Amino acid sequence: MPQVKVIVTLKPTLLDAQGRVVKEALHSLGYTEVEQVRMGKYLELQVDAQEANDRRVLENRIREMCDRLLANPVTEDYRFEIEEVPV
Amino acid sequence: MPQVKVIVTLKPTLLDAQGRVVKEALHSLGYTEVEQVRMGKYLELQVDAQEANDRRVLENRIREMCDRLLANPVTEDYRFEIEEVPV
Repeated sequence: MPQVKVIVTLKPTLLDAQGRVVKEALHSLGYTEVEQVRMGKYLELQVDAQEANDRRVLENRIREMCDRLLANPVTEDYRFEIEEVPV
Repeated sequence: MPQVKVIVTLKPTLLDAQGRVVKEALHSLGYTEVEQVRMGKYLELQVDAQEANDRRVLENRIREMCDRLLANPVTEDYRFEIEEVPV
């Protein structure tokens, strides 16, 4: 069964307020070597093998899912990997 | 400058309510091949090269950051990769 790992991150030009809060918290704990923190979403999708037997079709479907739901095209970038997981 | 990529996910035994909502939304858009969705956090940390020149020290520091702040040890697992990014 294919497993798809999707990573959604803010576009680099955007201020990452959440990342800044985490960085400051790390600094307050003494981890001052951390210079920047960027936050994002991680998703693991299990996909039905029968429907996903054509890799190119699956890749297009994943792109559609990201464009339509999983990522905000205005503020976020996404990337994904497809792994074959033994059932 | 080392870049650390951290992925934080719910422990597999825990119900992923957020993941279920995303799965149902994908199904309502017609992506019924998606059988399961697991959500998590993705963080990219830029770390000061001078302070991170000993890889083992850096790995221990990252583990500490995850255990103390970035991941909830009761409900979450984490994994990370350290990449060398040209300055």
